[in-house]
Amino acid sequence: MNIGEKLNMTMLCDFYELTMGNGYFENGFKDKITYFDVFFRRVPDKGGFAIAAGLEQLIRYIEDLHFTPEDIAYLRGRNLFCEEFLEYLANFRFTGDIYAVPEGTPVFPKEPLVVVRAPAIEAQLIETFTLLTVNHQSLIATKANRITRAARGRTVLEFGSRRAQGSDAAITGARAAYIGGCAGTACTISDQLYGVPAGGTMAHAWVQMFDSEYEAFKTYCEIYPTNATLLVDTYNTLKSGIPNAIRAFNEVLKPKGITKCGIRLDSGDMAYLTRKARKMLDDAGWTECKISVSNSLDEYLIQDLFMQGAQIDMFGVGERMITARSEPVFGGVYKLAAVEDDEGNIIPKIKVSENVEKITIPHFKKVYRFYGRDTGKAIADLITLHDEQVDDTQDLEIFDPMATWKKKTVYNFTARELLVPVFLKGKRVYDSPTLPEIQAYCRQQVDTLWDEVKRFDNPHKYVVDLSRKLWDIQQELLRSSQR
Amino acid sequence: MNIGEKLNMTMLCDFYELTMGNGYFENGFKDKITYFDVFFRRVPDKGGFAIAAGLEQLIRYIEDLHFTPEDIAYLRGRNLFCEEFLEYLANFRFTGDIYAVPEGTPVFPKEPLVVVRAPAIEAQLIETFTLLTVNHQSLIATKANRITRAARGRTVLEFGSRRAQGSDAAITGARAAYIGGCAGTACTISDQLYGVPAGGTMAHAWVQMFDSEYEAFKTYCEIYPTNATLLVDTYNTLKSGIPNAIRAFNEVLKPKGITKCGIRLDSGDMAYLTRKARKMLDDAGWTECKISVSNSLDEYLIQDLFMQGAQIDMFGVGERMITARSEPVFGGVYKLAAVEDDEGNIIPKIKVSENVEKITIPHFKKVYRFYGRDTGKAIADLITLHDEQVDDTQDLEIFDPMATWKKKTVYNFTARELLVPVFLKGKRVYDSPTLPEIQAYCRQQVDTLWDEVKRFDNPHKYVVDLSRKLWDIQQELLRSSQR
Repeated sequence: MNIGEKLNMTMLCDFYELTMGNGYFENGFKDKITYFDVFFRRVPDKGGFAIAAGLEQLIRYIEDLHFTPEDIAYLRGRNLFCEEFLEYLANFRFTGDIYAVPEGTPVFPKEPLVVVRAPAIEAQLIETFTLLTVNHQSLIATKANRITRAARGRTVLEFGSRRAQGSDAAITGARAAYIGGCAGTACTISDQLYGVPAGGTMAHAWVQMFDSEYEAFKTYCEIYPTNATLLVDTYNTLKSGIPNAIRAFNEVLKPKGITKCGIRLDSGDMAYLTRKARKMLDDAGWTECKISVSNSLDEYLIQDLFMQGAQIDMFGVGERMITARSEPVFGGVYKLAAVEDDEGNIIPKIKVSENVEKITIPHFKKVYRFYGRDTGKAIADLITLHDEQVDDTQDLEIFDPMATWKKKTVYNFTARELLVPVFLKGKRVYDSPTLPEIQAYCRQQVDTLWDEVKRFDNPHKYVVDLSRKLWDIQQELLRSSQR
Repeated sequence: MNIGEKLNMTMLCDFYELTMGNGYFENGFKDKITYFDVFFRRVPDKGGFAIAAGLEQLIRYIEDLHFTPEDIAYLRGRNLFCEEFLEYLANFRFTGDIYAVPEGTPVFPKEPLVVVRAPAIEAQLIETFTLLTVNHQSLIATKANRITRAARGRTVLEFGSRRAQGSDAAITGARAAYIGGCAGTACTISDQLYGVPAGGTMAHAWVQMFDSEYEAFKTYCEIYPTNATLLVDTYNTLKSGIPNAIRAFNEVLKPKGITKCGIRLDSGDMAYLTRKARKMLDDAGWTECKISVSNSLDEYLIQDLFMQGAQIDMFGVGERMITARSEPVFGGVYKLAAVEDDEGNIIPKIKVSENVEKITIPHFKKVYRFYGRDTGKAIADLITLHDEQVDDTQDLEIFDPMATWKKKTVYNFTARELLVPVFLKGKRVYDSPTLPEIQAYCRQQVDTLWDEVKRFDNPHKYVVDLSRKLWDIQQELLRSSQR
């Protein structure tokens, strides 16, 4: 069972994609082959890199792409579309090619994350959903990666469903958070659908439902002796919560020989309370009792807690991760890069802008990542034409496309292509890894980045250059646009 | 057809709701009647009020609440739940009462937006989805209301699907934006499902697809002569975009006697370009041509544009509205307010906190809003016990619960109850208004607020007081919790 399989998202498109589609149809552009790139211009939170995610949902969307008779009836009712176009839509399937960066890959501004080669109407129609899923999940995976790195190996759980921006934000948001490094989620359906491990124990209401806190704790330990994490801040953490928890552990768990248990704090001064709590638990012999905290945390607050000597084994992170609160938009765009003429020649296209950062990179492209053979570290990315080959047995001089005097020679490296074929002629050709595989791949690829690129503030700018051929084409198009 | 009808969201719950549910079941609390309130503590963006929304999706969720055999199988596989509880879940339906503030109502911190009276397991299980839908749609409706008020009567369209946090954020986000005051959306499926008017014309790709900008415009006008809004910033707005648009209007629309048309700008200096554009269009006789802009707008940028004399008829607002970018979390919480004992007496419950702002208001409650008989303006809200009656033929003294010496006498007023029954004994008793009715109600209710409450910065704090009886109960519970 899968939400993507249940819901047909074909109509989740911007209306202009349909008016343009009808226009292409009426103007004879129906079969014109186009190339579109998905890329982003800036890493959220001023970070050094982002984590690509959302491809799996894009794949399911593409596979399910079709208009139902109700969809066609709705569109006919708008009195804007010709009957032939509606008939075309009734038989609509995606027939093009899609290349994409695998989920979990660290990615950088300007490089294509997804490349679509398809007839104009098809390529145009998938714009909104493609951006939506890549933008949303990359946003959350990137944020989760920051937060889990701040946690220095401690467990981070995703707790944000109730503050998520809609049901899909909760469900696939938990998936993206797992890719970025979270160990699990509170969201049950994300486990059921995607295998993100879901867990949870009690809310304040559980404690309030009983005549006393102690009774609430004791009852919980009796029902879940091997899974007893008690919420200790309903009344007074130090004076009542922790003493009652210790009493319940002693009376229920100890006789059973159980040493693993936990407490959770959801309010108050986490640095002070967790240090005190650790001492009280240790003094009572509950050295294996884990301390969890959950109260509007993010990467900066987690770093601060460590600085203050907080004693925390597990972080539950809610609204600030599931909404990427500090910067809740991943600005991926979908831009025309080329069209094919009637003979199948690729004609590169450019979008000019007064803001030089917004000028697009034309043509059908691919992306190489270079890793040092000795260090295993990522050195630079190079965007090339689709048919260029990098020979990684030779030294290679690359240059900054915005400041061409900035040159760099890459040597003793291996080159890896980032974009892999996902659909060819409308058929899926990509086997998705499992979610744990994606998470492990993400961790391993983030490890290939130098620490300087991973800093939260003022990270070193990773090099993403253009091949000479590609740069020449871009410059020529810029010149001719100004004539 | 409706997404809520297609998707069973029962498993979109925090896992602790299930572990607690099983615990209540095993501990004999299954039929214990509980009261939970949904309320929020702070208006996003430091605003003076929020707009309640999301009730319709809550209703559909409650009506559809059930566990499928697959859900039960998944839960059994977790090895945490007793068979009797799983059997109970297999026959699970919501049997309780729900009261809620109608969608589109301006609401204030601390007052209940939703009140649930239900057996413990049921009330606990619906926590996550109830919060999720109310938090999400209230967030977007509130932001949209700010943005549309900033637009001073000009049309505002929701353009943010591609940057929304998942598909539901796009679809129901457009619905919430419409409630808050937007005239329509770019999101096709939101029109099809909810009747939010969807529209749109062209992207830059349309212009780039043709050999010239002029040809692209001319073709578009020929296909959509009565719906011709041309995107004029692909190459150079003033030197090529607007002249080509005027030429296409002259050649295609003029002979047909069409005077209505539009241009759209998506980049550049909006204040300067729209003033220039207006003059060029007027000089060419296209005085009815509407100017639309769309480029990372929000309420502050729209105010600035007016200050600078920008000539804009329509705003397309994307990422900053659909994610509520400046503050993307609506912090609604779900708190136990009371339980019933075996004789059906209501036992009020309180959640204490060191932070006095976080102390809950106990008991089964209702909310009155007082309107001046002469002005029609909202004067104050009063939270009372569920069985208190306000007599609005008499003057009434109310007081601030946080500073009890602050008293206010309300006179010459009408009192209206805000919470209406939505479900009674599990049966829906509420007929939802249509979406245009909700939007109109929202506009009318916002009009009842004094301008001082509607300011974006430093708004006047609207009075929300507690009845004497309710305040006494809260104080008594606070005292006994400290013994």
